[in-house]
Amino acid sequence: MDKEAKISGIRYIFEPKSVAVVGASEDKSKYGYFLMKNLMSLGFKGKIYPVNRKREKVLGLKCYPTVDSIPHNVETVIIMIPAVHTLQVIKDCVKKGVKGVIICTSGFREIGKEGIEIENKIVEAAQKARIRVIGPNTTGVLNAVNGFTSTFVIISRPSIGPVSIIAQTGMFASVLSDYIITSQPFGLSKIVGLGNKSDVDDADILEYLLHDQDTKVIAIYMEGVKDGRRLFNIAKKVTKKKPVLVLKSAYSKYGGDASLTHTGSLMISDDIFEAVCKGSGMIRVDDIEEMFDYLKAFSFLPLLKKNRIAVIAYTGAGCVMSADACEKYGLKIAEFSTKTMNRLMKNAPSFGKIRNPIDAELLRQGMGDMSSSLNFALETILGDKNVDAVSIVLIGLSTAKELLDIDVENIFSKIKKKYPKKPIVVTTIGGKEIVENHEERFERLAIPFYPSLLRNIRALAALYNYGRIIYGKN
Amino acid sequence: MDKEAKISGIRYIFEPKSVAVVGASEDKSKYGYFLMKNLMSLGFKGKIYPVNRKREKVLGLKCYPTVDSIPHNVETVIIMIPAVHTLQVIKDCVKKGVKGVIICTSGFREIGKEGIEIENKIVEAAQKARIRVIGPNTTGVLNAVNGFTSTFVIISRPSIGPVSIIAQTGMFASVLSDYIITSQPFGLSKIVGLGNKSDVDDADILEYLLHDQDTKVIAIYMEGVKDGRRLFNIAKKVTKKKPVLVLKSAYSKYGGDASLTHTGSLMISDDIFEAVCKGSGMIRVDDIEEMFDYLKAFSFLPLLKKNRIAVIAYTGAGCVMSADACEKYGLKIAEFSTKTMNRLMKNAPSFGKIRNPIDAELLRQGMGDMSSSLNFALETILGDKNVDAVSIVLIGLSTAKELLDIDVENIFSKIKKKYPKKPIVVTTIGGKEIVENHEERFERLAIPFYPSLLRNIRALAALYNYGRIIYGKN
Repeated sequence: MDKEAKISGIRYIFEPKSVAVVGASEDKSKYGYFLMKNLMSLGFKGKIYPVNRKREKVLGLKCYPTVDSIPHNVETVIIMIPAVHTLQVIKDCVKKGVKGVIICTSGFREIGKEGIEIENKIVEAAQKARIRVIGPNTTGVLNAVNGFTSTFVIISRPSIGPVSIIAQTGMFASVLSDYIITSQPFGLSKIVGLGNKSDVDDADILEYLLHDQDTKVIAIYMEGVKDGRRLFNIAKKVTKKKPVLVLKSAYSKYGGDASLTHTGSLMISDDIFEAVCKGSGMIRVDDIEEMFDYLKAFSFLPLLKKNRIAVIAYTGAGCVMSADACEKYGLKIAEFSTKTMNRLMKNAPSFGKIRNPIDAELLRQGMGDMSSSLNFALETILGDKNVDAVSIVLIGLSTAKELLDIDVENIFSKIKKKYPKKPIVVTTIGGKEIVENHEERFERLAIPFYPSLLRNIRALAALYNYGRIIYGKN
Repeated sequence: MDKEAKISGIRYIFEPKSVAVVGASEDKSKYGYFLMKNLMSLGFKGKIYPVNRKREKVLGLKCYPTVDSIPHNVETVIIMIPAVHTLQVIKDCVKKGVKGVIICTSGFREIGKEGIEIENKIVEAAQKARIRVIGPNTTGVLNAVNGFTSTFVIISRPSIGPVSIIAQTGMFASVLSDYIITSQPFGLSKIVGLGNKSDVDDADILEYLLHDQDTKVIAIYMEGVKDGRRLFNIAKKVTKKKPVLVLKSAYSKYGGDASLTHTGSLMISDDIFEAVCKGSGMIRVDDIEEMFDYLKAFSFLPLLKKNRIAVIAYTGAGCVMSADACEKYGLKIAEFSTKTMNRLMKNAPSFGKIRNPIDAELLRQGMGDMSSSLNFALETILGDKNVDAVSIVLIGLSTAKELLDIDVENIFSKIKKKYPKKPIVVTTIGGKEIVENHEERFERLAIPFYPSLLRNIRALAALYNYGRIIYGKN
């Protein structure tokens, strides 16, 4: 298959004009019911053709006995029937001239010899006919932009945004997307669960997402790698345009064993994978929390060309720990200009020294309240050309809310407009209600809010490390 | 000062029968007002004597011009007046024969030469008279058990529990305690912010907490160490009885600089500090999140003698990542007995393999619902003598709540009673509402709930690593 046909095959899978659902059902105990519900409720505008030998209609739509009996063009087919019947469906798809197939059913490579045989036959037949196959053993795709999905657990339509996610497995892709919809401030472009990767793998999707205008940041959860060299080459191209985060599991003996049962993935040496990441510019993360921390940073913030960080903390301990964190993650504590230092000192009480990290409690004592001290500190240091980014550590006391109240919206909408190229991240230590209130208000302004100051600094480091790929190492 | 006098001096600071407050005030712009409010509202049953030259009464209590003019016994004195006046107060305390002093005011060692001079004079005078001094430059103590405090930001009384915290600084101690009260499921025993550590340091408090019946777990936030050898010796004794977690900042050049301004702490080589931790059995943590993760584990769970972990995950990806995490943190994936394997396989669909980690989605498909599959899996593996602890990875879909609903209370209260020596930790991936619901319900049953499966495993590793100190290395 030539390269262009390969990419366009993937495009049909995310952006079909017509789709057939083999195993469509009105029986609420069947996945084929939930899939139909999703397709009809998420706003997908293409044609939907249920396929089921036993029915005339499914959810009001005319039903066909086989794919090749549909008297209209069919670009993509979703297969939800038992493994043993899938080869026949693929043969029908070949006859019909479809472009892409998503096989959701499990019972293939991951169960051993018998399953491997069916899987191999299916892929052989599909590839001969230039049909791209996602799966088997997955929930497939969700395109937030056009509402197309093969997901068979009921989901809400996510808000549209810059993030695309490639996950090895379907259930994981589904719960991650639910987590994002309900807990994360950024929107989604595409999510795909690749399952057994019998044909389409991470590299194929990456290549598609490279050209996808809606996708600005990519995250991958990966257990196995089919072709490390190819992944390396494609990732290297993609990371020149868009950051690619990778959470690679099955790196240990235990993990490898578990993965073999799960998706039939074979282990790749972790040293080799690490080299693939380093060489290709992919950003390897340790866990889901780190992945989402960076997705938020890349969705909301500009990259960093230089790494001189200013810290504003309302607790001295926050200053010290932030300074440590900068060194830990390879960032510098910015050296303020004399002008900045002089301005800051004017508003501090006589006994306090102000330097970077700024112990802003001193400014608050000097200026009377949180909002003015914070606004003053931000205006002063963001105007300093020696400062590239700011990490803010606020405090909140449930019993003295008004004392520490901050006019988030006023201060930060102005500051963001005035200094659009200087990333700001925020954390708050204190009472639960205040922390949640701050999180919501800051993220509504597209300012990332993290649960710890360490994660603030780590996120800024990600912007800097990836910035070096884009702007060159300095 | 002999050792016993030293410890009993500290005891007066946490458990005084009578306290004088120098700088007590009714002026709501003064810290002396908030401190009085706290003392009167948190349930402290001892005598309170306000000291203020300008007033007859403060908040209805008779006020005295000086400490030594109080015609009753005074065990402990809290000082809230400017640094320049503090030496005179200490002289009054010596005359009066008080046992402990807490100096909240700042403007001492942390501001340089002039401050160092006052601080040295104060400590010299106090030590000659066998008075123990906490601070200066801190909020001092909070004893949740008897309601005594020197904290001058308004706080609520925390629920009483096994955790005591030693923090370098006052504001940090205050916001941490607010965080614990509003966000953490465990209760508090003592919190202390040590400030400049002019006299009392971490080692002194550790020695006191060793004998404190109410304290079962100790966490320290520390910037500087005055006497590493002494800390080592005392910590070594304490860790034989109670786990001691240490978050040590100012380990980098940047952090050291920041700390010098903050509390006047001098840097200690991080290699030396690391050796102090290793040799004494203190558990070093990287950040606040790790500290609270372990506090929760040690508060709720038994220690681990052996490290054979079982994982129950409702997503294959959760199985693979949990297995990796076990290897990363030095734990083993338990090998189930043949009996356990056979029992598990009976309830799985024909195409699925069940092993450890258990892909419980297969059991759910076999058994029909989440609750029965979870209960069955738990009963089966906890009865296996090859299993020491369990990490559970649940999933939650906002759009299919009933589908994945779990009878948490019924299942886990029985299981906990039946297997009290096998720690269980839980995480849920999915929609926000479900995650929050699970967190609350599990922690009400004293089962730690973490935001990620990595942190589940890391917490179990902490129970095992500390268990090796208690039970011996095996």
